[in-house]
Amino acid sequence: MDKKLTAALVIIGNEILSGRTQDTNINWIATKMSDQGIKLIEVRVVPDEEDAIIFAINELRPKVGYVFTTGGIGPTHDDITSETIAKAFGAEFGINADARKILLDYYKSESELTPARLRMAHMPVGATLIDNPVSGAPGFQMENVYVMAGVPRIMQGMLDSILPTLSSGKPYLSNTISCELAESKIAETLGNIQKQYESVDIGSYPHFRSGSVGLALVLRSTDNDNLHAATQDVVDMVRSYGVEPTGISVRTDGKPIV
Amino acid sequence: MDKKLTAALVIIGNEILSGRTQDTNINWIATKMSDQGIKLIEVRVVPDEEDAIIFAINELRPKVGYVFTTGGIGPTHDDITSETIAKAFGAEFGINADARKILLDYYKSESELTPARLRMAHMPVGATLIDNPVSGAPGFQMENVYVMAGVPRIMQGMLDSILPTLSSGKPYLSNTISCELAESKIAETLGNIQKQYESVDIGSYPHFRSGSVGLALVLRSTDNDNLHAATQDVVDMVRSYGVEPTGISVRTDGKPIV
Repeated sequence: MDKKLTAALVIIGNEILSGRTQDTNINWIATKMSDQGIKLIEVRVVPDEEDAIIFAINELRPKVGYVFTTGGIGPTHDDITSETIAKAFGAEFGINADARKILLDYYKSESELTPARLRMAHMPVGATLIDNPVSGAPGFQMENVYVMAGVPRIMQGMLDSILPTLSSGKPYLSNTISCELAESKIAETLGNIQKQYESVDIGSYPHFRSGSVGLALVLRSTDNDNLHAATQDVVDMVRSYGVEPTGISVRTDGKPIV
Repeated sequence: MDKKLTAALVIIGNEILSGRTQDTNINWIATKMSDQGIKLIEVRVVPDEEDAIIFAINELRPKVGYVFTTGGIGPTHDDITSETIAKAFGAEFGINADARKILLDYYKSESELTPARLRMAHMPVGATLIDNPVSGAPGFQMENVYVMAGVPRIMQGMLDSILPTLSSGKPYLSNTISCELAESKIAETLGNIQKQYESVDIGSYPHFRSGSVGLALVLRSTDNDNLHAATQDVVDMVRSYGVEPTGISVRTDGKPIV
Protein backbone atom coordinates (compact mmCIF):
# COMPACT_ATOMS: atom_id res chain seq x y z
CA MET A 1 0.00 0.00 0.00
CA ASP A 2 1.31 3.42 -0.99
CA LYS A 3 1.57 5.40 2.27
CA LYS A 4 0.84 8.61 0.37
CA LEU A 5 -2.64 7.21 -0.32
CA THR A 6 -3.54 6.48 3.31
CA ALA A 7 -5.29 8.64 5.86
CA ALA A 8 -6.33 8.69 9.51
CA LEU A 9 -9.03 10.78 11.13
CA VAL A 10 -9.11 12.20 14.66
CA ILE A 11 -12.53 13.33 15.84
CA ILE A 12 -12.01 15.72 18.75
CA GLY A 13 -15.28 15.81 20.59
CA ASN A 14 -16.60 15.22 24.09
CA GLU A 15 -20.10 15.34 22.59
CA ILE A 16 -19.45 12.13 20.64
CA LEU A 17 -17.88 10.29 23.60
CA SER A 18 -20.72 11.29 25.93
CA GLY A 19 -23.35 9.98 23.53
CA ARG A 20 -24.97 13.38 23.17
CA THR A 21 -24.23 13.62 19.46
CA GLN A 22 -24.47 10.94 16.78
CA ASP A 23 -21.34 11.40 14.66
CA THR A 24 -21.76 11.77 10.92
CA ASN A 25 -18.31 13.18 10.07
CA ILE A 26 -16.63 9.75 9.99
CA ASN A 27 -18.96 8.48 7.30
CA TRP A 28 -18.74 11.67 5.24
CA ILE A 29 -14.93 11.74 5.26
CA ALA A 30 -14.66 7.95 4.72
CA THR A 31 -16.81 8.20 1.60
CA LYS A 32 -14.81 11.10 0.18
CA MET A 33 -11.55 9.22 0.80
CA SER A 34 -12.88 6.12 -1.00
CA ASP A 35 -13.85 8.26 -3.98
CA GLN A 36 -10.38 9.84 -4.00
CA GLY A 37 -8.67 6.44 -3.86
CA ILE A 38 -7.26 7.14 -0.40
CA LYS A 39 -7.51 4.37 2.18
CA LEU A 40 -8.78 5.51 5.58
CA ILE A 41 -6.91 3.16 7.88
CA GLU A 42 -7.94 4.40 11.32
CA VAL A 43 -10.32 6.73 13.09
CA ARG A 44 -9.97 7.89 16.67
CA VAL A 45 -12.46 9.80 18.76
CA VAL A 46 -10.71 11.62 21.60
CA PRO A 47 -11.90 14.10 24.23
CA ASP A 48 -11.19 17.85 24.15
CA GLU A 49 -8.12 17.27 26.31
CA GLU A 50 -4.59 18.32 25.46
CA ASP A 51 -2.77 15.09 26.34
CA ALA A 52 -5.23 12.88 24.49
CA ILE A 53 -5.12 15.02 21.34
CA ILE A 54 -1.32 15.27 21.27
CA PHE A 55 -0.94 11.52 21.81
CA ALA A 56 -3.29 10.67 18.94
CA ILE A 57 -1.84 13.20 16.51
CA ASN A 58 1.77 12.31 17.15
CA GLU A 59 1.11 8.58 16.99
CA LEU A 60 -0.82 8.79 13.72
CA ARG A 61 1.00 11.42 11.66
CA PRO A 62 4.12 9.36 10.90
CA LYS A 63 1.97 6.36 9.96
CA VAL A 64 -0.15 7.78 7.15
CA GLY A 65 -0.14 10.19 4.25
CA TYR A 66 -2.80 12.45 5.73
CA VAL A 67 -4.25 13.06 9.19
CA PHE A 68 -7.55 14.94 9.37
CA THR A 69 -8.97 16.36 12.55
CA THR A 70 -12.45 17.71 13.21
CA GLY A 71 -13.62 19.84 16.11
CA GLY A 72 -12.38 22.32 18.66
CA ILE A 73 -11.36 25.30 16.51
CA GLY A 74 -14.15 27.72 17.43
CA PRO A 75 -14.08 30.76 19.73
CA THR A 76 -15.14 29.24 23.06
CA HIS A 77 -13.16 28.01 26.09
CA ASP A 78 -13.57 24.36 25.05
CA ASP A 79 -11.92 25.00 21.66
CA ILE A 80 -8.35 23.93 22.36
CA THR A 81 -7.43 22.10 19.17
CA SER A 82 -5.36 24.83 17.47
CA GLU A 83 -3.14 25.51 20.46
CA THR A 84 -2.78 21.79 21.11
CA ILE A 85 -1.71 21.07 17.53
CA ALA A 86 0.98 23.73 17.93
CA LYS A 87 2.21 21.86 21.02
CA ALA A 88 2.11 18.53 19.19
CA PHE A 89 4.46 20.01 16.58
CA GLY A 90 6.56 21.97 19.08
CA ALA A 91 5.59 25.09 17.10
CA GLU A 92 5.01 28.63 18.26
CA PHE A 93 1.38 29.70 18.52
CA GLY A 94 0.08 33.14 17.62
CA ILE A 95 -2.02 35.30 15.34
CA ASN A 96 -1.88 34.30 11.68
CA ALA A 97 -2.03 37.53 9.67
CA ASP A 98 -3.93 35.99 6.75
CA ALA A 99 -6.48 34.39 9.07
CA ARG A 100 -6.91 37.71 10.85
CA LYS A 101 -7.61 39.41 7.54
CA ILE A 102 -10.22 36.80 6.62
CA LEU A 103 -11.97 37.31 9.97
CA LEU A 104 -11.81 41.10 9.58
CA ASP A 105 -13.46 40.82 6.15
CA TYR A 106 -16.08 38.48 7.61
CA TYR A 107 -16.94 40.58 10.69
CA LYS A 108 -16.58 43.89 8.72
CA SER A 109 -14.88 46.08 11.37
CA GLU A 110 -12.04 46.05 13.89
CA SER A 111 -14.50 46.67 16.72
CA GLU A 112 -16.40 43.49 15.81
CA LEU A 113 -13.13 41.51 15.88
CA THR A 114 -13.53 40.76 19.59
CA PRO A 115 -10.93 38.77 21.56
CA ALA A 116 -13.16 35.65 21.27
CA ARG A 117 -13.36 35.97 17.47
CA LEU A 118 -9.65 36.77 17.24
CA ARG A 119 -9.03 33.44 19.00
CA MET A 120 -9.95 31.82 15.67
CA ALA A 121 -7.00 33.58 14.00
CA HIS A 122 -4.53 32.01 16.42
CA MET A 123 -2.64 29.16 14.80
CA PRO A 124 0.65 27.31 14.92
CA VAL A 125 3.35 29.37 13.21
CA GLY A 126 3.99 27.82 9.80
CA ALA A 127 0.39 26.71 9.24
CA THR A 128 -1.23 26.97 5.81
CA LEU A 129 -4.87 28.10 5.83
CA ILE A 130 -7.80 25.92 4.77
CA ASP A 131 -10.59 27.92 3.17
CA ASN A 132 -13.95 27.91 4.97
CA PRO A 133 -16.65 28.78 2.42
CA VAL A 134 -19.42 28.49 5.04
CA SER A 135 -18.60 30.64 8.05
CA GLY A 136 -15.38 32.56 7.47
CA ALA A 137 -12.96 31.29 10.13
CA PRO A 138 -10.40 29.11 8.33
CA GLY A 139 -8.98 25.72 9.26
CA PHE A 140 -5.30 25.04 8.77
CA GLN A 141 -2.71 22.53 7.67
CA MET A 142 0.54 21.73 9.50
CA GLU A 143 2.69 19.32 7.45
CA ASN A 144 0.37 16.34 6.79
CA VAL A 145 -2.19 17.26 9.47
CA TYR A 146 -5.40 19.03 8.31
CA VAL A 147 -7.36 20.74 11.06
CA MET A 148 -11.04 21.25 10.31
CA ALA A 149 -14.17 22.39 12.13
CA GLY A 150 -16.48 19.87 13.80
CA VAL A 151 -19.80 21.30 12.61
CA PRO A 152 -20.65 18.98 9.69
CA ARG A 153 -21.54 21.68 7.15
CA ILE A 154 -18.40 23.67 7.87
CA MET A 155 -16.21 20.53 7.86
CA GLN A 156 -17.69 19.53 4.51
CA GLY A 157 -16.91 22.93 3.03
CA MET A 158 -13.32 22.76 4.31
CA LEU A 159 -12.87 19.22 2.99
CA ASP A 160 -14.03 20.36 -0.44
CA SER A 161 -11.29 23.00 -0.28
CA ILE A 162 -8.68 20.38 0.63
CA LEU A 163 -9.52 17.46 -1.68
CA PRO A 164 -8.15 18.90 -4.94
CA THR A 165 -4.78 19.42 -3.24
CA LEU A 166 -4.40 15.78 -2.09
CA SER A 167 -2.89 12.88 -3.99
CA SER A 168 -5.45 10.66 -5.60
CA GLY A 169 -5.46 6.99 -6.52
CA LYS A 170 -7.90 4.78 -8.31
CA PRO A 171 -11.25 5.22 -6.60
CA TYR A 172 -12.46 2.32 -4.46
CA LEU A 173 -15.45 0.72 -6.14
CA SER A 174 -17.92 -1.29 -4.15
CA ASN A 175 -20.58 -3.78 -5.26
CA THR A 176 -23.24 -5.12 -2.91
CA ILE A 177 -25.27 -8.31 -3.21
CA SER A 178 -28.19 -8.55 -0.79
CA CYS A 179 -29.85 -11.86 -0.05
CA GLU A 180 -31.79 -13.73 2.59
CA LEU A 181 -29.26 -16.39 3.52
CA ALA A 182 -27.66 -17.10 6.89
CA GLU A 183 -23.99 -16.16 6.62
CA SER A 184 -22.94 -19.37 8.37
CA LYS A 185 -24.43 -21.24 5.41
CA ILE A 186 -22.36 -19.51 2.74
CA ALA A 187 -19.23 -18.90 4.83
CA GLU A 188 -17.05 -21.63 3.35
CA THR A 189 -17.93 -20.98 -0.31
CA LEU A 190 -17.55 -17.23 0.16
CA GLY A 191 -14.14 -17.80 1.74
CA ASN A 192 -13.11 -19.77 -1.35
CA ILE A 193 -14.17 -16.93 -3.64
CA GLN A 194 -12.16 -14.51 -1.48
CA LYS A 195 -9.09 -16.70 -1.91
CA GLN A 196 -9.41 -16.49 -5.71
CA TYR A 197 -9.45 -12.67 -5.75
CA GLU A 198 -6.60 -11.18 -3.74
CA SER A 199 -7.23 -7.65 -4.98
CA VAL A 200 -10.85 -7.68 -3.82
CA ASP A 201 -12.01 -7.30 -0.19
CA ILE A 202 -15.16 -9.34 0.39
CA GLY A 203 -17.14 -8.53 3.52
CA SER A 204 -20.21 -10.27 4.90
CA TYR A 205 -22.67 -8.17 6.91
CA PRO A 206 -25.79 -9.74 8.39
CA HIS A 207 -28.67 -7.58 9.58
CA PHE A 208 -32.12 -7.96 11.09
CA ARG A 209 -35.06 -6.25 9.49
CA SER A 210 -38.72 -6.84 10.31
CA GLY A 211 -37.86 -10.09 12.04
CA SER A 212 -36.02 -11.79 9.19
CA VAL A 213 -32.27 -12.21 8.72
CA GLY A 214 -30.72 -10.50 5.73
CA LEU A 215 -27.18 -10.50 4.45
CA ALA A 216 -25.21 -7.91 2.52
CA LEU A 217 -22.15 -9.25 0.71
CA VAL A 218 -19.92 -6.32 -0.10
CA LEU A 219 -17.05 -6.51 -2.60
CA ARG A 220 -14.59 -3.63 -2.67
CA SER A 221 -11.53 -2.94 -4.79
CA THR A 222 -9.75 -0.43 -6.98
CA ASP A 223 -9.43 -3.19 -9.62
CA ASN A 224 -12.52 -2.97 -11.83
CA ASP A 225 -12.06 -6.23 -13.77
CA ASN A 226 -11.43 -8.53 -10.83
CA LEU A 227 -14.15 -6.84 -8.81
CA HIS A 228 -16.61 -7.41 -11.64
CA ALA A 229 -15.65 -11.07 -11.97
CA ALA A 230 -15.78 -11.70 -8.22
CA THR A 231 -19.21 -10.08 -8.08
CA GLN A 232 -20.51 -12.45 -10.74
CA ASP A 233 -19.10 -15.38 -8.75
CA VAL A 234 -20.86 -14.22 -5.59
CA VAL A 235 -24.17 -13.83 -7.43
CA ASP A 236 -23.74 -17.34 -8.86
CA MET A 237 -22.98 -18.64 -5.37
CA VAL A 238 -26.15 -17.11 -3.92
CA ARG A 239 -28.22 -18.73 -6.69
CA SER A 240 -26.51 -22.08 -6.07
CA TYR A 241 -28.34 -22.10 -2.71
CA GLY A 242 -31.65 -21.80 -4.57
CA VAL A 243 -32.08 -18.18 -3.59
CA GLU A 244 -32.40 -15.11 -5.83
CA PRO A 245 -30.50 -12.02 -4.57
CA THR A 246 -32.92 -9.42 -3.20
CA GLY A 247 -30.67 -6.66 -4.47
CA ILE A 248 -27.58 -6.22 -6.66
CA SER A 249 -25.87 -2.84 -6.57
CA VAL A 250 -22.94 -2.65 -8.97
CA ARG A 251 -20.53 0.26 -9.55
CA THR A 252 -18.05 -1.57 -11.78
CA ASP A 253 -17.99 -1.42 -15.57
CA GLY A 254 -18.02 -4.51 -17.75
CA LYS A 255 -20.45 -7.05 -19.06
CA PRO A 256 -23.57 -6.83 -16.93
CA ILE A 257 -23.89 -9.13 -13.93
CA VAL A 258 -26.34 -11.85 -14.96
CA MET B 1 -10.67 10.03 37.64
CA ASP B 2 -11.17 6.50 38.92
CA LYS B 3 -9.62 4.24 36.25
CA LYS B 4 -12.16 1.53 37.09
CA LEU B 5 -14.85 3.88 35.77
CA THR B 6 -13.26 4.50 32.36
CA ALA B 7 -13.74 2.68 29.09
CA ALA B 8 -12.46 2.59 25.53
CA LEU B 9 -14.18 1.18 22.47
CA VAL B 10 -12.60 -0.46 19.42
CA ILE B 11 -14.86 -0.72 16.39
CA ILE B 12 -13.45 -3.41 14.11
CA GLY B 13 -14.92 -2.75 10.73
CA ASN B 14 -13.79 -2.17 7.18
CA GLU B 15 -17.38 -1.20 6.38
CA ILE B 16 -17.13 1.89 8.62
CA LEU B 17 -13.71 2.94 7.27
CA SER B 18 -14.84 2.55 3.66
CA GLY B 19 -17.89 4.74 4.21
CA ARG B 20 -20.28 1.96 3.26
CA THR B 21 -21.91 1.86 6.71
CA GLN B 22 -22.91 4.72 8.98
CA ASP B 23 -21.82 3.63 12.45
CA THR B 24 -24.41 3.71 15.23
CA ASN B 25 -22.62 1.50 17.79
CA ILE B 26 -20.43 4.33 19.11
CA ASN B 27 -23.44 6.41 20.08
CA TRP B 28 -25.31 3.48 21.60
CA ILE B 29 -22.38 2.38 23.76
CA ALA B 30 -21.45 5.98 24.69
CA THR B 31 -24.96 6.61 25.96
CA LYS B 32 -25.03 3.41 28.03
CA MET B 33 -21.64 4.27 29.54
CA SER B 34 -22.85 7.77 30.52
CA ASP B 35 -25.89 6.25 32.22
CA GLN B 36 -23.67 3.78 34.08
CA GLY B 37 -21.33 6.55 35.26
CA ILE B 38 -18.44 5.19 33.18
CA LYS B 39 -16.40 7.69 31.18
CA LEU B 40 -15.75 6.64 27.59
CA ILE B 41 -12.34 8.20 27.00
CA GLU B 42 -11.49 6.97 23.51
CA VAL B 43 -12.95 5.24 20.48
CA ARG B 44 -10.92 3.73 17.67
CA VAL B 45 -12.17 2.38 14.37
CA VAL B 46 -9.68 -0.09 12.90
CA PRO B 47 -9.77 -2.38 9.86
CA ASP B 48 -10.29 -6.16 10.00
CA GLU B 49 -6.52 -6.62 10.06
CA GLU B 50 -4.57 -8.50 12.70
CA ASP B 51 -1.79 -5.98 13.32
CA ALA B 52 -4.16 -3.04 13.60
CA ILE B 53 -6.45 -4.85 16.04
CA ILE B 54 -3.62 -6.10 18.26
CA PHE B 55 -2.02 -2.67 18.38
CA ALA B 56 -5.25 -0.95 19.42
CA ILE B 57 -6.22 -3.57 22.02
CA ASN B 58 -2.82 -3.74 23.66
CA GLU B 59 -2.40 0.01 23.72
CA LEU B 60 -5.81 0.63 25.27
CA ARG B 61 -6.32 -2.19 27.76
CA PRO B 62 -3.77 -1.00 30.36
CA LYS B 63 -5.16 2.54 30.13
CA VAL B 64 -8.80 2.00 31.07
CA GLY B 65 -11.11 -0.06 33.24
CA TYR B 66 -12.92 -1.63 30.30
CA VAL B 67 -12.23 -2.13 26.60
CA PHE B 68 -15.18 -3.04 24.39
CA THR B 69 -14.85 -4.29 20.85
CA THR B 70 -17.51 -4.71 18.20
CA GLY B 71 -17.33 -6.68 14.97
CA GLY B 72 -15.58 -9.62 13.40
CA ILE B 73 -16.85 -12.57 15.47
CA GLY B 74 -19.14 -14.20 12.90
CA PRO B 75 -18.58 -17.33 10.79
CA THR B 76 -17.07 -15.87 7.61
CA HIS B 77 -13.48 -15.48 6.40
CA ASP B 78 -13.39 -11.80 7.34
CA ASP B 79 -14.23 -12.56 10.98
CA ILE B 80 -10.78 -12.59 12.56
CA THR B 81 -11.41 -10.80 15.85
CA SER B 82 -11.52 -13.83 18.19
CA GLU B 83 -8.28 -15.34 16.97
CA THR B 84 -6.63 -11.93 16.97
CA ILE B 85 -7.66 -11.22 20.57
CA ALA B 86 -6.05 -14.54 21.56
CA LYS B 87 -2.84 -13.36 19.92
CA ALA B 88 -3.07 -9.97 21.63
CA PHE B 89 -3.16 -11.78 24.99
CA GLY B 90 -0.63 -14.45 23.98
CA ALA B 91 -3.34 -17.01 24.77
CA GLU B 92 -4.09 -20.36 23.16
CA PHE B 93 -7.04 -20.41 20.77
CA GLY B 94 -9.51 -23.27 20.44
CA ILE B 95 -13.02 -24.56 20.91
CA ASN B 96 -14.74 -23.30 24.05
CA ALA B 97 -16.90 -26.19 25.30
CA ASP B 98 -19.63 -23.94 26.72
CA ALA B 99 -19.82 -21.93 23.52
CA ARG B 100 -20.04 -25.14 21.52
CA LYS B 101 -22.95 -26.30 23.67
CA ILE B 102 -24.78 -22.99 23.13
CA LEU B 103 -24.34 -23.32 19.36
CA LEU B 104 -25.49 -26.94 19.42
CA ASP B 105 -28.66 -25.91 21.30
CA TYR B 106 -29.19 -23.09 18.81
CA TYR B 107 -28.66 -25.13 15.63
CA LYS B 108 -30.40 -28.21 17.13
CA SER B 109 -28.17 -31.02 15.76
CA GLU B 110 -24.51 -31.98 15.36
CA SER B 111 -24.95 -32.15 11.59
CA GLU B 112 -26.08 -28.52 11.51
CA LEU B 113 -22.99 -27.53 13.51
CA THR B 114 -20.95 -27.02 10.34
CA PRO B 115 -17.28 -25.99 10.40
CA ALA B 116 -18.32 -22.41 9.63
CA ARG B 117 -20.73 -22.32 12.58
CA LEU B 118 -18.22 -24.03 14.84
CA ARG B 119 -15.84 -21.18 14.05
CA MET B 120 -18.02 -19.09 16.38
CA ALA B 121 -17.18 -21.45 19.29
CA HIS B 122 -13.44 -20.81 18.88
CA MET B 123 -12.14 -18.46 21.53
CA PRO B 124 -9.02 -17.61 23.48
CA VAL B 125 -8.49 -20.15 26.25
CA GLY B 126 -9.53 -18.54 29.52
CA ALA B 127 -12.34 -16.45 28.01
CA THR B 128 -15.63 -15.96 29.85
CA LEU B 129 -18.72 -16.04 27.65
CA ILE B 130 -21.01 -13.08 27.02
CA ASP B 131 -24.63 -14.09 26.54
CA ASN B 132 -26.19 -13.33 23.14
CA PRO B 133 -29.96 -13.20 23.60
CA VAL B 134 -30.53 -12.39 19.91
CA SER B 135 -28.76 -14.94 17.73
CA GLY B 136 -27.11 -17.61 19.88
CA ALA B 137 -23.38 -17.29 19.21
CA PRO B 138 -21.86 -15.73 22.35
CA GLY B 139 -19.30 -12.96 22.72
CA PHE B 140 -16.54 -13.27 25.27
CA GLN B 141 -14.49 -11.47 27.88
CA MET B 142 -10.71 -11.75 28.34
CA GLU B 143 -9.58 -9.85 31.45
CA ASN B 144 -10.94 -6.31 30.91
CA VAL B 145 -11.63 -6.74 27.18
CA TYR B 146 -15.24 -7.44 26.12
CA VAL B 147 -15.64 -8.80 22.60
CA MET B 148 -19.06 -8.22 21.06
CA ALA B 149 -20.75 -8.62 17.68
CA GLY B 150 -20.88 -5.74 15.21
CA VAL B 151 -24.52 -6.10 14.15
CA PRO B 152 -26.23 -3.40 16.23
CA ARG B 153 -29.12 -5.50 17.55
CA ILE B 154 -26.80 -8.32 18.61
CA MET B 155 -24.26 -5.93 20.15
CA GLN B 156 -27.07 -4.25 22.09
CA GLY B 157 -28.23 -7.60 23.46
CA MET B 158 -24.69 -8.51 24.51
CA LEU B 159 -24.13 -5.12 26.14
CA ASP B 160 -27.32 -5.60 28.17
CA SER B 161 -25.82 -8.89 29.38
CA ILE B 162 -22.57 -7.17 30.37
CA LEU B 163 -23.75 -3.94 32.01
CA PRO B 164 -24.97 -5.39 35.34
CA THR B 165 -21.51 -6.97 35.84
CA LEU B 166 -19.58 -3.69 35.43
CA SER B 167 -18.71 -1.16 38.11
CA SER B 168 -21.00 1.81 38.13
CA GLY B 169 -20.52 5.38 39.21
CA LYS B 170 -22.84 8.33 39.47
CA PRO B 171 -24.55 8.68 36.09
CA TYR B 172 -23.47 11.60 33.92
CA LEU B 173 -26.30 14.11 33.71
CA SER B 174 -26.51 16.53 30.85
CA ASN B 175 -28.52 19.71 30.45
CA THR B 176 -28.86 21.53 27.13
CA ILE B 177 -29.74 25.17 26.50
CA SER B 178 -30.53 25.99 22.88
CA CYS B 179 -30.49 29.54 21.62
CA GLU B 180 -29.96 31.63 18.53
CA LEU B 181 -26.77 33.42 19.46
CA ALA B 182 -23.39 33.37 17.71
CA GLU B 183 -20.97 31.50 19.93
CA SER B 184 -18.30 34.12 19.39
CA LYS B 185 -20.62 36.59 21.12
CA ILE B 186 -21.03 34.60 24.33
CA ALA B 187 -17.58 32.97 24.36
CA GLU B 188 -16.00 35.14 27.05
CA THR B 189 -18.94 35.06 29.48
CA LEU B 190 -19.40 31.34 28.98
CA GLY B 191 -15.72 30.79 29.71
CA ASN B 192 -16.16 32.67 32.98
CA ILE B 193 -19.06 30.44 33.99
CA GLN B 194 -16.93 27.39 33.16
CA LYS B 195 -14.20 28.71 35.47
CA GLN B 196 -16.71 28.91 38.36
CA TYR B 197 -17.79 25.27 38.05
CA GLU B 198 -14.84 22.90 37.90
CA SER B 199 -17.00 19.77 38.21
CA VAL B 200 -19.13 20.71 35.19
CA ASP B 201 -18.04 20.34 31.55
CA ILE B 202 -19.57 23.08 29.45
CA GLY B 203 -19.53 22.57 25.70
CA SER B 204 -20.64 24.96 22.98
CA TYR B 205 -21.96 23.43 19.74
CA PRO B 206 -23.09 25.67 16.90
CA HIS B 207 -25.22 24.27 14.09
CA PHE B 208 -26.90 25.42 10.93
CA ARG B 209 -30.58 24.75 10.36
CA SER B 210 -32.74 26.24 7.63
CA GLY B 211 -30.17 28.94 6.99
CA SER B 212 -29.95 30.34 10.53
CA VAL B 213 -27.23 29.79 13.10
CA GLY B 214 -28.22 27.98 16.28
CA LEU B 215 -26.22 27.14 19.36
CA ALA B 216 -26.51 24.28 21.83
CA LEU B 217 -24.83 24.89 25.18
CA VAL B 218 -24.35 21.52 26.85
CA LEU B 219 -23.52 21.16 30.55
CA ARG B 220 -22.44 17.73 31.77
CA SER B 221 -21.49 16.42 35.19
CA THR B 222 -22.07 13.72 37.78
CA ASP B 223 -22.57 16.51 40.35
CA ASN B 224 -26.29 17.34 40.37
CA ASP B 225 -26.17 20.51 42.48
CA ASN B 226 -23.36 22.27 40.66
CA LEU B 227 -24.77 21.21 37.30
CA HIS B 228 -28.13 22.68 38.23
CA ALA B 229 -26.59 25.96 39.39
CA ALA B 230 -24.37 26.26 36.32
CA THR B 231 -27.36 25.62 34.08
CA GLN B 232 -29.26 28.49 35.72
CA ASP B 233 -26.23 30.75 35.18
CA VAL B 234 -26.08 29.84 31.49
CA VAL B 235 -29.80 30.53 31.05
CA ASP B 236 -29.35 33.90 32.78
CA MET B 237 -26.40 34.63 30.51
CA VAL B 238 -28.43 33.90 27.36
CA ARG B 239 -31.18 36.26 28.59
CA SER B 240 -28.59 38.95 29.35
CA TYR B 241 -28.07 39.20 25.59
CA GLY B 242 -31.77 39.98 25.16
CA VAL B 243 -32.54 36.52 23.79
CA GLU B 244 -34.89 33.85 25.16
CA PRO B 245 -33.56 30.26 24.93
CA THR B 246 -35.35 28.31 22.20
CA GLY B 247 -35.09 25.16 24.29
CA ILE B 248 -34.08 24.10 27.81
CA SER B 249 -33.63 20.38 28.41
CA VAL B 250 -32.79 19.59 32.02
CA ARG B 251 -32.05 16.21 33.64
CA THR B 252 -30.90 17.48 37.02
CA ASP B 253 -33.09 17.67 40.12
CA GLY B 254 -33.50 20.81 42.17
CA LYS B 255 -35.43 24.03 42.06
CA PRO B 256 -36.69 24.50 38.51
CA ILE B 257 -34.60 26.53 36.09
CA VAL B 258 -36.35 29.87 35.79
